[in-house]
Amino acid sequence: MARSRASTMSSPVHRLLIVAAAAALVSACAADPEPVQDFCVAAVTNGSADHPSYPGFPCKPASAVVSDDFFFAGLAKSGAAEAAESPFGSSVTPGNVAAFPGLNTLGVSINRVDLAPGGVNPLHSHPRAAELVHVVAGQMLVGFVSTAGTFYSKVVREGESFVIPRGLVHFQFNTGKEAARAVTVFNSQLPGVVLAAPSLFGADPEIPDAVLAKSFQVDGEIIKLLKSKFRN
Amino acid sequence: MARSRASTMSSPVHRLLIVAAAAALVSACAADPEPVQDFCVAAVTNGSADHPSYPGFPCKPASAVVSDDFFFAGLAKSGAAEAAESPFGSSVTPGNVAAFPGLNTLGVSINRVDLAPGGVNPLHSHPRAAELVHVVAGQMLVGFVSTAGTFYSKVVREGESFVIPRGLVHFQFNTGKEAARAVTVFNSQLPGVVLAAPSLFGADPEIPDAVLAKSFQVDGEIIKLLKSKFRN
Amino acid sequence: MARSRASTMSSPVHRLLIVAAAAALVSACAADPEPVQDFCVAAVTNGSADHPSYPGFPCKPASAVVSDDFFFAGLAKSGAAEAAESPFGSSVTPGNVAAFPGLNTLGVSINRVDLAPGGVNPLHSHPRAAELVHVVAGQMLVGFVSTAGTFYSKVVREGESFVIPRGLVHFQFNTGKEAARAVTVFNSQLPGVVLAAPSLFGADPEIPDAVLAKSFQVDGEIIKLLKSKFRN
Amino acid sequence: MARSRASTMSSPVHRLLIVAAAAALVSACAADPEPVQDFCVAAVTNGSADHPSYPGFPCKPASAVVSDDFFFAGLAKSGAAEAAESPFGSSVTPGNVAAFPGLNTLGVSINRVDLAPGGVNPLHSHPRAAELVHVVAGQMLVGFVSTAGTFYSKVVREGESFVIPRGLVHFQFNTGKEAARAVTVFNSQLPGVVLAAPSLFGADPEIPDAVLAKSFQVDGEIIKLLKSKFRN
Amino acid sequence: MARSRASTMSSPVHRLLIVAAAAALVSACAADPEPVQDFCVAAVTNGSADHPSYPGFPCKPASAVVSDDFFFAGLAKSGAAEAAESPFGSSVTPGNVAAFPGLNTLGVSINRVDLAPGGVNPLHSHPRAAELVHVVAGQMLVGFVSTAGTFYSKVVREGESFVIPRGLVHFQFNTGKEAARAVTVFNSQLPGVVLAAPSLFGADPEIPDAVLAKSFQVDGEIIKLLKSKFRN
Amino acid sequence: MARSRASTMSSPVHRLLIVAAAAALVSACAADPEPVQDFCVAAVTNGSADHPSYPGFPCKPASAVVSDDFFFAGLAKSGAAEAAESPFGSSVTPGNVAAFPGLNTLGVSINRVDLAPGGVNPLHSHPRAAELVHVVAGQMLVGFVSTAGTFYSKVVREGESFVIPRGLVHFQFNTGKEAARAVTVFNSQLPGVVLAAPSLFGADPEIPDAVLAKSFQVDGEIIKLLKSKFRN
Repeated sequence: MARSRASTMSSPVHRLLIVAAAAALVSACAADPEPVQDFCVAAVTNGSADHPSYPGFPCKPASAVVSDDFFFAGLAKSGAAEAAESPFGSSVTPGNVAAFPGLNTLGVSINRVDLAPGGVNPLHSHPRAAELVHVVAGQMLVGFVSTAGTFYSKVVREGESFVIPRGLVHFQFNTGKEAARAVTVFNSQLPGVVLAAPSLFGADPEIPDAVLAKSFQVDGEIIKLLKSKFRN
Repeated sequence: MARSRASTMSSPVHRLLIVAAAAALVSACAADPEPVQDFCVAAVTNGSADHPSYPGFPCKPASAVVSDDFFFAGLAKSGAAEAAESPFGSSVTPGNVAAFPGLNTLGVSINRVDLAPGGVNPLHSHPRAAELVHVVAGQMLVGFVSTAGTFYSKVVREGESFVIPRGLVHFQFNTGKEAARAVTVFNSQLPGVVLAAPSLFGADPEIPDAVLAKSFQVDGEIIKLLKSKFRN
Repeated sequence: MARSRASTMSSPVHRLLIVAAAAALVSACAADPEPVQDFCVAAVTNGSADHPSYPGFPCKPASAVVSDDFFFAGLAKSGAAEAAESPFGSSVTPGNVAAFPGLNTLGVSINRVDLAPGGVNPLHSHPRAAELVHVVAGQMLVGFVSTAGTFYSKVVREGESFVIPRGLVHFQFNTGKEAARAVTVFNSQLPGVVLAAPSLFGADPEIPDAVLAKSFQVDGEIIKLLKSKFRN
Repeated sequence: MARSRASTMSSPVHRLLIVAAAAALVSACAADPEPVQDFCVAAVTNGSADHPSYPGFPCKPASAVVSDDFFFAGLAKSGAAEAAESPFGSSVTPGNVAAFPGLNTLGVSINRVDLAPGGVNPLHSHPRAAELVHVVAGQMLVGFVSTAGTFYSKVVREGESFVIPRGLVHFQFNTGKEAARAVTVFNSQLPGVVLAAPSLFGADPEIPDAVLAKSFQVDGEIIKLLKSKFRN
Repeated sequence: MARSRASTMSSPVHRLLIVAAAAALVSACAADPEPVQDFCVAAVTNGSADHPSYPGFPCKPASAVVSDDFFFAGLAKSGAAEAAESPFGSSVTPGNVAAFPGLNTLGVSINRVDLAPGGVNPLHSHPRAAELVHVVAGQMLVGFVSTAGTFYSKVVREGESFVIPRGLVHFQFNTGKEAARAVTVFNSQLPGVVLAAPSLFGADPEIPDAVLAKSFQVDGEIIKLLKSKFRN
Repeated sequence: MARSRASTMSSPVHRLLIVAAAAALVSACAADPEPVQDFCVAAVTNGSADHPSYPGFPCKPASAVVSDDFFFAGLAKSGAAEAAESPFGSSVTPGNVAAFPGLNTLGVSINRVDLAPGGVNPLHSHPRAAELVHVVAGQMLVGFVSTAGTFYSKVVREGESFVIPRGLVHFQFNTGKEAARAVTVFNSQLPGVVLAAPSLFGADPEIPDAVLAKSFQVDGEIIKLLKSKFRN
């Protein structure tokens, strides 16, 4: 469903929603249930983890597990070029259980975030994990809003870290002159992603204008404008 | 902090943020930790639960616990008049551990939602609980957006229920000609509230316009307009 | 097994045990494990959730999930007439995952309790959830016994609530002149029910008289009398 | 409260309720929260674990912890004589966190059960743990009733084991000619005890006769008789 | 894999590794996930629990569950003779979910440890459970090392107990003149076993000598000597 | 205790044990309990988190929390020089709750590992977390041993990752010609560290030679040699 809709959208939003869709299929909770084996490498078909028919993923037979199941090279490829072309100026490469089946039941995952100068990893939240941002190159403003409405933020540079509690709205914004890069790590095999703008204004079917207008205390024209950015 | 800021805001948003602020002080996770006694009634000073100096609340001495500690009358009072006066057309009366100290460690809570005709309990999410909406009077459209961007919704009438997964954006909207009322129940003693519009456009200090403009793909004028609704 | 036995019993006890039996097949723990997707709507055959072949229920394919999966109308129907005919003067309509498959993995459920004047929802406990009783109409005495042997109780009226810790023996008793109604909510998708009298005196096969007589410090005649109420 | 009442009761019930009362003060859940240190030995005053002012117990300073904190000799003393004198023919020696402070945060505990010939560890349930019964001497019938009303039981002999799910009513009954002894182990530092007969008929204040009579489908005389065994 | 390798090793190590291998296939976490039914007896083929194709085990149909599913006689057989023949002077008889399918989802298990005079249950840790050692006959020195490097130990005699926190290295050593016997209980259905010496020096394929030599600060000859004890 | 002993040891082991000791004081479990507020920044005295007097840390008052509480710069400093001087050729800089108080209750942490050419982060396990190794510079062999005795390993290069299940013995070994660097992330605020060699041969007081000799199947001279590397 997400796919068919995404295909009618501009590519950057498309990309954002593909990540979100993957999370929706299999995303794990903030504190994943405890492992019930040393490991349970997710069975894979056509290169991606099998769709779960129970909560979580089926296990590859233990006798078929090899060292490569615990290895992931997907974050070695730079997303800088993709970020530069994106209207957000950002690119997120996921390293969650859908991409890295060996994480199944282990309760941890990692993403790579590339930001062009002035680029933003747009406002979003993770329903099922806290996030620790570790900057590998460049600098970025990282911030979140608490449920009390307080905004906490900091410019984070190479080798520095910033932590974001579970379920709170946050972003990364490249405040430097060079491309910036971070790894973001989560205490979940798949933290889930709620992208603020696409969830509110790009949902399919759409949220009624009256609900959005009253929630944001603006008129319908503003709502239609915002929807035009995330729907066709 | 939330208080001082809230005092500079219009009263409905103020009300919304007071609820959020209470959640921020003490809100419990979606699946609260297991109880370690039959009960641990939260100690109370000046009529509200003591501020936790550890995660969770200190216990009232077991010898001082009485039947009234397990009782809560706060939802018996109608919020209809308050809803009618609110720009959102809604009123939420919380029955979480901050208001009902006997819930401490029990992992459950309940709110009352009153909606005037056309009123909306504005778009929000709960970082730490799933929500079951049970309509007691009238009718309301209840909907949420999954992390895949799919919008699920239903008109719910007296005696009917609708469930919302943890951490997803949702709302209730009175589609009837009469006042409507629901109880919303949570698998947490304090689910926490992230109000979409105030969190994004009313945070204190404010989220930089550049971050909001790029996240919503609109220009700064639209951002300033939206901020004007939730800040002074 | 429960079914075959139940069919030989008086209908009210039968009804009580059907609820218990449903719980036995699939009942979830007080603090259900964390969800591993946004949702995992329980697959359904012949109108009831599939029997779990693993702990918990298999998921309906995400592509087949619709808004109605999150909706439940089963509590809109009054149980007042059924309560009036029951020897207990009560009727419980379950809204757990067996009846409402969309609750699967969400960790919350809701029942409707109807009580005729003088009716009792008989003494029972929930091994896997705390319970919050919210009275919708009339009044009822709600009470529980702690593991220290202390009885906590309160007369609860319309719009008021009372909370019962997990695993403790409790009841609701209509102390008013009119029919009374409550919703009871749980921090589990299926809290499980241990009905005190039928579990002790109506178990199948039966608990030896010597065990019951010594546990209750009475002679075998009293045990036989009690068993006669719950067995044929 | 339990103490003052217990002091007015016959000694075996007194003994049973002391165990229950200890559980009520501090009993831990079936699946205790995860430890947050290697250990957190409960601080002790006057020979018993300090009363928790937060869920769980305060920690003895790590620098004061010694090997003896992890050692418990309380189960080496036979309860056979006490069992022989008891109207139940049984004696339970607890090895939970209240008696063995080193168990705090470790999520496990152990009791010793002595049964005279014909003796019964009376019907009860543990709200916060499963129980594994391991027979050390003699033989006993061990049984529990599922929430479906099915009774599962077995005669268990020296070196054999039987397991009882959390929250279900169960007992041990010495079916041999000699004294019998078992250790019962729990996946909780304090499983809690709900004693069926004393909870129902010996609660303080007492459960109204009307509630008991209707729940057990007998008249008030039978209820008064049962109460007379567990109250003065 | 473990089996083929074990077959090339001396029988005592073989025995140790069979226990470890069973744990590896299905071992549960220290605090197992909560049960989602009263019970979920593990389905069994050829006398041992089915291999899990999901985390945990499939359930035997509830209608096929009988009392014997909750019963285990495997610890009644003495391991004294086996211990006497072992180069370690010890024998461990597991009573975990692989041997006792009724434990599935119940979060508890039990082993029998037999020690010949001077025998040692060699240094090991349990990644997924705390352990309570209860001595049934004889005496043994029981000790563990904390993550701070402190060694806690005690001579434990018949009827006495000692507790070992999760994941820490520990042992039992018979310091008496007679055979000794203990039951060890765990807050997991399968705690997992990491045997210090075989894991380090007997792994297959082998850990490079350079890694072992540098970790133990000794030369390669010592490493080869140690490997020779656990590999062929 | 660890401190006094450590002071008598060679500096690299000293360093290793300081890390371990910090973990012992406060280390959190693999799946930390759920947060009960948005955050609970650990109160700090003299620059390090207060010693917990309850499981976990006391919270800094919410009104005193500032953005810098969520920020950590400790991993920006290279450990390459320290690694080059160490007999192990490695240096670990912890970014757990003891160093980064804002992580308290958030269930995630991060370390920096610097390895000189040929350097090893010596064999160890984490009792309370899985570990994801992400290489930032250079290359390293990363491996672990399952409870079945199988060794899984891989050479991991810049931008690549390898995951290690909770509680299993593992290491990192620089197989390149240049200094190597990784960040290791954990699903715990303090995973705990069991260093294989120092725990076995450097414990204080020491583990009896007889226990070590029998466990490793070597004579006392080898044990004395190994102890000489980790004790004075």
